[in-house]
This record gives sequence, C-alpha cells and structure tokens, in this order.
Amino acid sequence: MTDHLEEKTINKKEIYKGRIIDLSVHNVALPNGKESKREIINHPGAVAVLAVTKENKIVLVNQYRKALEKTIAEIPAGKLETGEDPSLCAIRELEEETGYRAHSVKKIASFYTSPGFADEIVYLFEAEHLSEGKVQTDEDEFVELIEVTVEEALDMIKSEAIHDAKTILAIQHYLLNR
Amino acid sequence: MTDHLEEKTINKKEIYKGRIIDLSVHNVALPNGKESKREIINHPGAVAVLAVTKENKIVLVNQYRKALEKTIAEIPAGKLETGEDPSLCAIRELEEETGYRAHSVKKIASFYTSPGFADEIVYLFEAEHLSEGKVQTDEDEFVELIEVTVEEALDMIKSEAIHDAKTILAIQHYLLNR
Repeated sequence: MTDHLEEKTINKKEIYKGRIIDLSVHNVALPNGKESKREIINHPGAVAVLAVTKENKIVLVNQYRKALEKTIAEIPAGKLETGEDPSLCAIRELEEETGYRAHSVKKIASFYTSPGFADEIVYLFEAEHLSEGKVQTDEDEFVELIEVTVEEALDMIKSEAIHDAKTILAIQHYLLNR
Repeated sequence: MTDHLEEKTINKKEIYKGRIIDLSVHNVALPNGKESKREIINHPGAVAVLAVTKENKIVLVNQYRKALEKTIAEIPAGKLETGEDPSLCAIRELEEETGYRAHSVKKIASFYTSPGFADEIVYLFEAEHLSEGKVQTDEDEFVELIEVTVEEALDMIKSEAIHDAKTILAIQHYLLNR
C-alpha cells in the first residue's frame, strides 16, 4: 500500500562499528528516481519499565547521560543483550537499577525512539507484583533511585526534570489507565 | 544535587561529521574513578506537531524510514535548521508536509528521544486554528497525508502501524486533554 514511498539502497558504507551503536551511510534511490544520502544508526534495542509501588509512587532513576552532559530522571531502562527476551530483560534491569523485583511484567507498547536516523526500539512494560530485591548495577552504570507521586511526576515534566520521551509516555499511560 | 553521578570526559575522538548527525566517542572517568567509553550522536533537534482537524481527526503522515526499512505513520515532524525558532519550524513543517496551516502553535512538551546515546531533543507543539495551505515537501522528502479518528489511532498503536514514541506521546496528550 505504501511501497511507492520506499527508498532503495544503491550502496552503503559502514563508518563505525561500536560497543552499542553502528553507523552507516546509505546512498538511496528516492521514489522520484533521484539520489540522496541517509545516515543510519543501528542499535540493539532497549526495554523500559513502569513500576508503581504499593504507596502509589512511580519508580524513577537519576542517571547521568553523557550525550546530554547532565543528569535526568527516567523510568528504569536498559539495552537488550543479543537474543535476550525483552520481558526478562525488563525484570532484570528493574531489579539491578532499583532493587525492586517484579513477579511479572505486562507489555504496554513498543516504539521507535528516533526513526529519522536510528532503528532503536523500546519495549515498554508495566511491572506487576513488586517486592524488594537487591540493587546491583553494571560496573559502568551509576544510578540513584527516586520515588515520586504522579503529581510530582507531572511537575517534573513541566519543569523538565523529567525530559525523556519514554518516561513521559509511561506516565501518561499510567494516568490514562489507573 | 546529582553532581556525584557525573561522568567527566578525559578525551574524545570525532568519528564522523554528517549532513544531519555527528558521531564521537568519549573516554570518560566514571564516578568511581574507573574509565569507560561513551558513543555519542549529536543531532540538531526536531519539532513535531499534534494537529486535529475540525472533524476531530488527527493529522498523520506516512513516511518511509530508511533506518527501519519500512513506512510508518507519524505526526508531522522535521528537524530544526540552525538557529530556527521551534514554533516557526513547527508551523512550516506542518504546512509543507500536510497542507494544513496553523495560525499559531502551543508547546505541549519537549523531550530527549534516546538519551542513552543521542542528544536529539523534540519540541512537541499543538496546532491552533488550522486552515488549508499548500503542500510543499522538501526535494528529498516523500510523505502521504492520512487523517484518523482517535479510535483509529488507538487501534494503529495496538497493531503497531503507529510505532513511534513522539506520535504515541502526542495521542496520549490529546486523550488526557480533549
């Protein structure tokens, strides 16, 4: 139905293969036959978790984001290991970063984060039946747990202390479904 | 307050300077003194527009996304030119891609799309007082206008025909505020 919008790759050049992302540049044939370039980032994908405590607080983590050169508050998240099941990854990342263990998770949605240049997909889950586990972050990961009411979360969105697409999307989902 | 999470750059290497994105790799000192690498994409930022017609239909565009090798439906969006005012960019992109002209736009939120590796920020606006203008896409941009009811949009999120963070976030905002 939308095949007429397709851009066909004429050739591509791999620029960088990294630890997390790869960069390539594609020469493409546009629908009108002209040529253009597309700069493409490949990413392994990630999970994110909406977790709400029995006190109705939303679980967030402060994390320094080098790309932004600042610390922002986000829902717990992490990238997928090769072949890893997203729901198991979500349970693992939640416990590692926050100490909360989810008995199970339910998928809320999945979405591409930056389809203009990257193939990163985020699988967003809701944690079910939280209990206390053990914080154990990766060696190169430093995060700080915070728990906020939904009203505090909305204030943080307004003041841009929460300034992250997946986190705003998760909080709006909570508001629409609580 | 959160300075103790900061990662200081020891040195960085520029890998690629492109038409839209740049890639660099930073060697960083972690809070515990150890070293790690961060792969960073710099992007000029973008705008996106929630536009609802007087028939209460949400304005979307089908666009082929080379990074995904498929066509997805998104709210109208585009990247910022250097120094461009985001609200003027939003009005321009909406008209170029859809033919709808907004008398004005109101900021809904801004957010980073992929803070783990990129500094892309999206300024999300709501279009006010739509009238008919003239479609005039960029030379290398091919999009197709579609208009959907909010119920159709929710079905498209479930079936992943809408599979894009900013678009889901905008539709949730509309549901919470209509």
